[in-house]
Amino acid sequence: MAEIKLIDIKEDILSDNQALAGQIRDDLRGKRVFLMNLMASPGGGKTSLILQTLKRLRERFRMAVIEGDIDSQVDAEKIIREDIPAVQIRTGGFCHLDATMIERALKELDMAALDAIIVENIGNLVCPAEFDIGSTRSVMILSVPEGDDKPLKYPLMFSVCDVLVVNKTDYLEGSDFDMEALKERVLRLNPGIRIFPVSCRTGQGIDDWAEWLSAEIEKIKNWKSSF
Amino acid sequence: MAEIKLIDIKEDILSDNQALAGQIRDDLRGKRVFLMNLMASPGGGKTSLILQTLKRLRERFRMAVIEGDIDSQVDAEKIIREDIPAVQIRTGGFCHLDATMIERALKELDMAALDAIIVENIGNLVCPAEFDIGSTRSVMILSVPEGDDKPLKYPLMFSVCDVLVVNKTDYLEGSDFDMEALKERVLRLNPGIRIFPVSCRTGQGIDDWAEWLSAEIEKIKNWKSSF
Repeated sequence: MAEIKLIDIKEDILSDNQALAGQIRDDLRGKRVFLMNLMASPGGGKTSLILQTLKRLRERFRMAVIEGDIDSQVDAEKIIREDIPAVQIRTGGFCHLDATMIERALKELDMAALDAIIVENIGNLVCPAEFDIGSTRSVMILSVPEGDDKPLKYPLMFSVCDVLVVNKTDYLEGSDFDMEALKERVLRLNPGIRIFPVSCRTGQGIDDWAEWLSAEIEKIKNWKSSF
Repeated sequence: MAEIKLIDIKEDILSDNQALAGQIRDDLRGKRVFLMNLMASPGGGKTSLILQTLKRLRERFRMAVIEGDIDSQVDAEKIIREDIPAVQIRTGGFCHLDATMIERALKELDMAALDAIIVENIGNLVCPAEFDIGSTRSVMILSVPEGDDKPLKYPLMFSVCDVLVVNKTDYLEGSDFDMEALKERVLRLNPGIRIFPVSCRTGQGIDDWAEWLSAEIEKIKNWKSSF
């Protein structure tokens, strides 16, 4: 009997993606540009956090935004209204961004004129966690209305991120969201993760978050090659 | 105000795919190998039609099968039990095959030892219709239990195929499936399409189908380059 030749597409795609993401990361570091991958569920507050962050950091750093969307550009419109350069990636159905898409988007930006780029990934806690886009740092938002049990349901996302922003803390009062239980669940998956509770609506906690991000951007800006 | 730079991933992917599919088609014709793309809903009878077809044609042509599946290889196992070479593409979640996957799979087969390859695409009437895989001919199956209204719901699939096999005609009796209404709907979308009513279970109509396919394979086998 003949033998079945097996081709595993997903494994191939993930390993090709990982290789390209590594190249992008090295290349950006060489150019002293910081890249942040921002992930969350739909409605978690990605665009709001970006707008709050730009407000704090735009005088200090030269910034741009890459917006991922399945089929619209409303978020990119909010960014350019702030007079910040924006690239819109319209995936046409794909539920995540990948390194190839980011490589294409970066070509639309002038690296020599930038210190930091924020990528707003597609609203989804599953697939974006599997695809490294070459970011210097990965950040996710969980919003209070989504509930404190999400680390149990989407462990990979909580495991791959450097930072968890817990947004919409203005909803905490009167909710059964247990911040301590959340932190315990997250730290069990990812002991090195930083957690910032914020409210993009009231501005509470945003300064701490922006301070951390500034320090990370500075590290890349002042990065000295050992060669 | 800044301008949004727009990157349209789906359009890019479809046009890259189309270019590679064209290369595959030319390359196979140069090697005198026929490639058939077989598409249908899950349970429409793709594997049954392949097995019936192999039974009729295996003495006349040297054949192989490329099996697409999201996450199993049960169909490929049925093929190698017939002692026919099989390549299994496991997409790991993707709902269609594309030209890149077929290019990879073709490398696992000995072209010099083959006349015809049948590709069993992922069970889905939507996405596979958008992705040319470089096939010489595209064939779809609609099975009687699915209903005669499917051309209204999945017009692209009925438009891109060279042949419609209407399978499970043994269910026609006592059903409200209207073969004439189906034909009218299909021919309105695609006046050049060939329609073969068959029953893979009883074998009814399979000879007509196999005769058409044999003639198509012969065309490629005897193809003379004009150069």
